[in-house]
Amino acid sequence: MTVRVGVIGTGMIGQDHIRRLTDVIAGARVSAVTDLDADRAAEVAARVGATAHPDGAELIASPEVDAVLVTSWGPTHAEHVLNAIAAGRPVFCEKPLATTAEDCLRIVEAERAHGRRLVQVGFMRRFDAGYRQMKEVLASGSLGTPLMVHCAHRNPTVPDSYTSRMAAQDTAVHEIDVLRWLLDDEIVSAQVITPRATSKRFAHLKDPQIMLFETANGVRVDLEVFVNCQYGYDIRCETVGEEGLVRLPDPAAVGVRTAGLHSTAVPQDWKARFVDAFDTEFREWIATVENGTEPTGPSAWDGYAATVITDAAVASLDSDGAVVTVDMKPRPACYGGAA
Amino acid sequence: MTVRVGVIGTGMIGQDHIRRLTDVIAGARVSAVTDLDADRAAEVAARVGATAHPDGAELIASPEVDAVLVTSWGPTHAEHVLNAIAAGRPVFCEKPLATTAEDCLRIVEAERAHGRRLVQVGFMRRFDAGYRQMKEVLASGSLGTPLMVHCAHRNPTVPDSYTSRMAAQDTAVHEIDVLRWLLDDEIVSAQVITPRATSKRFAHLKDPQIMLFETANGVRVDLEVFVNCQYGYDIRCETVGEEGLVRLPDPAAVGVRTAGLHSTAVPQDWKARFVDAFDTEFREWIATVENGTEPTGPSAWDGYAATVITDAAVASLDSDGAVVTVDMKPRPACYGGAA
Amino acid sequence: MTVRVGVIGTGMIGQDHIRRLTDVIAGARVSAVTDLDADRAAEVAARVGATAHPDGAELIASPEVDAVLVTSWGPTHAEHVLNAIAAGRPVFCEKPLATTAEDCLRIVEAERAHGRRLVQVGFMRRFDAGYRQMKEVLASGSLGTPLMVHCAHRNPTVPDSYTSRMAAQDTAVHEIDVLRWLLDDEIVSAQVITPRATSKRFAHLKDPQIMLFETANGVRVDLEVFVNCQYGYDIRCETVGEEGLVRLPDPAAVGVRTAGLHSTAVPQDWKARFVDAFDTEFREWIATVENGTEPTGPSAWDGYAATVITDAAVASLDSDGAVVTVDMKPRPACYGGAA
Amino acid sequence: MTVRVGVIGTGMIGQDHIRRLTDVIAGARVSAVTDLDADRAAEVAARVGATAHPDGAELIASPEVDAVLVTSWGPTHAEHVLNAIAAGRPVFCEKPLATTAEDCLRIVEAERAHGRRLVQVGFMRRFDAGYRQMKEVLASGSLGTPLMVHCAHRNPTVPDSYTSRMAAQDTAVHEIDVLRWLLDDEIVSAQVITPRATSKRFAHLKDPQIMLFETANGVRVDLEVFVNCQYGYDIRCETVGEEGLVRLPDPAAVGVRTAGLHSTAVPQDWKARFVDAFDTEFREWIATVENGTEPTGPSAWDGYAATVITDAAVASLDSDGAVVTVDMKPRPACYGGAA
Repeated sequence: MTVRVGVIGTGMIGQDHIRRLTDVIAGARVSAVTDLDADRAAEVAARVGATAHPDGAELIASPEVDAVLVTSWGPTHAEHVLNAIAAGRPVFCEKPLATTAEDCLRIVEAERAHGRRLVQVGFMRRFDAGYRQMKEVLASGSLGTPLMVHCAHRNPTVPDSYTSRMAAQDTAVHEIDVLRWLLDDEIVSAQVITPRATSKRFAHLKDPQIMLFETANGVRVDLEVFVNCQYGYDIRCETVGEEGLVRLPDPAAVGVRTAGLHSTAVPQDWKARFVDAFDTEFREWIATVENGTEPTGPSAWDGYAATVITDAAVASLDSDGAVVTVDMKPRPACYGGAA
Repeated sequence: MTVRVGVIGTGMIGQDHIRRLTDVIAGARVSAVTDLDADRAAEVAARVGATAHPDGAELIASPEVDAVLVTSWGPTHAEHVLNAIAAGRPVFCEKPLATTAEDCLRIVEAERAHGRRLVQVGFMRRFDAGYRQMKEVLASGSLGTPLMVHCAHRNPTVPDSYTSRMAAQDTAVHEIDVLRWLLDDEIVSAQVITPRATSKRFAHLKDPQIMLFETANGVRVDLEVFVNCQYGYDIRCETVGEEGLVRLPDPAAVGVRTAGLHSTAVPQDWKARFVDAFDTEFREWIATVENGTEPTGPSAWDGYAATVITDAAVASLDSDGAVVTVDMKPRPACYGGAA
Repeated sequence: MTVRVGVIGTGMIGQDHIRRLTDVIAGARVSAVTDLDADRAAEVAARVGATAHPDGAELIASPEVDAVLVTSWGPTHAEHVLNAIAAGRPVFCEKPLATTAEDCLRIVEAERAHGRRLVQVGFMRRFDAGYRQMKEVLASGSLGTPLMVHCAHRNPTVPDSYTSRMAAQDTAVHEIDVLRWLLDDEIVSAQVITPRATSKRFAHLKDPQIMLFETANGVRVDLEVFVNCQYGYDIRCETVGEEGLVRLPDPAAVGVRTAGLHSTAVPQDWKARFVDAFDTEFREWIATVENGTEPTGPSAWDGYAATVITDAAVASLDSDGAVVTVDMKPRPACYGGAA
Repeated sequence: MTVRVGVIGTGMIGQDHIRRLTDVIAGARVSAVTDLDADRAAEVAARVGATAHPDGAELIASPEVDAVLVTSWGPTHAEHVLNAIAAGRPVFCEKPLATTAEDCLRIVEAERAHGRRLVQVGFMRRFDAGYRQMKEVLASGSLGTPLMVHCAHRNPTVPDSYTSRMAAQDTAVHEIDVLRWLLDDEIVSAQVITPRATSKRFAHLKDPQIMLFETANGVRVDLEVFVNCQYGYDIRCETVGEEGLVRLPDPAAVGVRTAGLHSTAVPQDWKARFVDAFDTEFREWIATVENGTEPTGPSAWDGYAATVITDAAVASLDSDGAVVTVDMKPRPACYGGAA
């Protein structure tokens, strides 16, 4: 069976996922699309042989849609996801699940009431081979209990529209999700420290930022977020346990020796860095839809948790680096696990 | 359009490619299969929704087959490929193209007579990201003219059925193909030197072997083939030019520090090492079939060249390490390029 | 001319430096020793052909001593250094310069009154080839203004006598000194965070600790101190500037591939890790004594600064992680530079 | 006791070793010098407080000389070394021991007749920390019996006076010595293959060259010698055994990330690359002189062996790459070991 996916939002990310579902991975096709820009939706629909729908609600209701992919503007996510749950449709929602903790909780509650998981949130790092190796090593117990994690998230540059709060909301949110999963532990407080700002930034921007997190088990995380580091897109993660550490690898790249230097290229772009993770993410999601099983990726609860933790980080940033406790509701039993 | 692939030979490699076409990559499905073992063919056909055919000729003739994949026993390759050419069907043939230079030449001649390329041979290294980066660096000219290549091809172990000649025919053949492509140069002589043999071998086996190749442009290649190296599957390649060198990376793997060591895992298996190359190889081949264009991977000529070069290496092994000139026919213009 | 060194304190460190002056580096010999344990002093003196003196004051006054090396118990350092200054003798004092900020200031004041630098403090990292390369890169300006430094200082294990405060006083003090020098910047605040403690520790010990420093220029430093990390002695330092970063190398070590792993050994011991730095430190110090020039290594002021900064870190540890401002006096002009 | 060294030859190498004995290592001083250029000898003597002698014979006879260092022009080495043996003086001779196998044998015979080892030859690689780690790993047996060694010896460039034969005589001779020691095995044949020559060379020069050696135990060595590689001074060595491999490390160097690249510097110069090896070589030699024990470094026999093996390599180069058997006399028992 080929899974028929309806895509809400045909912007840059939406089109990239449509390409992935159409040209890269097996087992899926895009059967329906919608976008605020109806012309763009029609154009994309024609290109991949899908039907263009006037809005998300109609797309979700279409009998030609087995599963829904939400890649529209963030503030509209909650509505589409809630509609999909109401229709009993599996739904993959790009991050964020919703832009407020309240909306996330509404989704969690709707899913809980529905009785089984329908929602997967688009945090792709859990599907990266390097992070998966890290998790395997940590889960093996060979390094003992984790005590600390050192991370860096660097982008070469960001556009003028990027604000200081987005360092938590758009950038660190990836580490927040992947660390909760990696450690199987919950983040309970956040603190944001602001080093001297880079002069390569826009005047409004606090960049870099250092974020400190504490988990329920007492693990301490430091995360450098530096979105105008100039030199490349660079993701670092090192987890230190009682008996040793494990470190995320750099992507494989040829070594070159010339003119007095041994060098390897640093990726310039998150799409290149995580292209395999995105492919795996969708391949595994499509398989769960095809098999009629619950999604195995980040849940609605994970989407909620990421939102309240980034809220805490933003609150710390806004209050000059105070330690802010994460205000998280109790985790419903249906979401299992610790994080 | 979904490309309908007919698969001749449903052994281990055949089934792995069937899985790839069915579950991994977009744009293809297996519509027909055949195997000497008719029960196995029927079982596989049922599993993927294909038709089982009594033999290759009938499968090739089927109107439900857009392209043919030959993964049967090596000595049968030539017959199936010639049939496919006769039928004007695109055909992907696992290595070797044929087991004798004469049969390879018959295929080359048939394809030349047909007037356009239909054949792709399954040398997957050209699709590996690391080799592609190497080729890009070399093609940029930044390292000057290539002068030497140092390679190693190591397997943890091989079964009893592996013979000393297979070091060239089954193992080194991958380097032979990828180096011709990497250097855009032709191999003109081969020599095989036998170090002290490992005591971990079977008594009949000369392992390791060191193979020396010279190209038309005077590049010298040394290639260690060591198929019982015990520690892992390890592929090394370093090309030295007039201004510097470029080196194939090891696969990315987490670094672990514990018990006094910093370590990373070495792959144990060629399937794991080249899984992405296989996926890319088939994705690109399927795209050419879908677009009705000529295949872009290794050609029938490349299959012929690999065979005559491995013949030279085997002749050197059989004559105590003599330098053996490669006996290669002139390259038909339709195959373009230097190698 | 051979510099005649008088050594006060013939414990483990003292004897190691006596060996270095006697057997390793050119241009020096140990002419006089003293120790609270007179028998040990006599034994060491006999071994290297030196005179044993009853106490530091007499040793300093001896006409057979060109320069003084203080390697006695920390609380006695100030007295010996002050005596050496009073006698106009060059004096190398192992860290700490003195155990209280007040005593450090008395030394600074005495040296200032003397009119030229006589004191060098034994922070050896400034003499490590890796840190020197880092400083060269940073000083070149190619990475822009420094913004952040990420460090780790890990020991395999410590004895029962090690206390939580020693993480700052004995361990982090090395980073404190080397970072002031590396950045040419002053540390103005300290904060100590305590992750979940390792269960491999003694019950009294807060280990690991994460120390956060801010400099006058707004650089933020995070330093993991983990003195029971089990796996080895591991020193990490990465400085991130506006245009890129520079990272301390691991010591060179052979790579081994066997049994599925590629591995290199991690040092187990600070002596092995910094043996070359110690040799260089003494070689350069002896050269300044021989040439009659001021010492070029860490000054009395650096010794004072390290003490007040570690005091701030200890105060933070004692007050549950509060940010503590460093209480540093104005820097006398004679000590030049920013840090 | 301070060892008084008489130095024959005060050219570039001689002066570098004089600096080393005077300013770097403990336990030695230069008490006497001589040089064909008497003015230069006088100037150097004055600088280090030594006596200038009219010739080597007189220097060796001087009662102020405990040990002799020969750093004069190669063709004069044999005479000085034989004189030193006749005088019963420990003698350190820079490579080559002598320029002909016959002269080397005369020295071996003289030393054998003298009854104990007096001669050490200046092959410094045996004192390099990386090679020593390799030897330790190989000697531990953990990698099984060695089967192959892959080496490269690259210089950025050489002067016009460098000839094709010097690739063996001056360059590969370092690998020849260190591999005999590393493997504890003897080299029995040599073959030199000439790839396409670099266009960065002088017209007369065959560069690069690939040298193949076989040992008595059947180990095969391939050694790339490339003395105009442009990019740096780069020494590679990888020994492959039955159970795994061990690889010489690159020198430790800071990693820098900027402008899209991660890079480390490659040494440009053999003096920088092996400075620590030279220091250790002389420190250990001086200690044997001081202790009155036999030297532990490369022996006269090793000097002879290196000469006959380079002779074989040159003969192969001169005969278009023929395999040339090494013509080595039986090893006198007094030199112990296999190589």
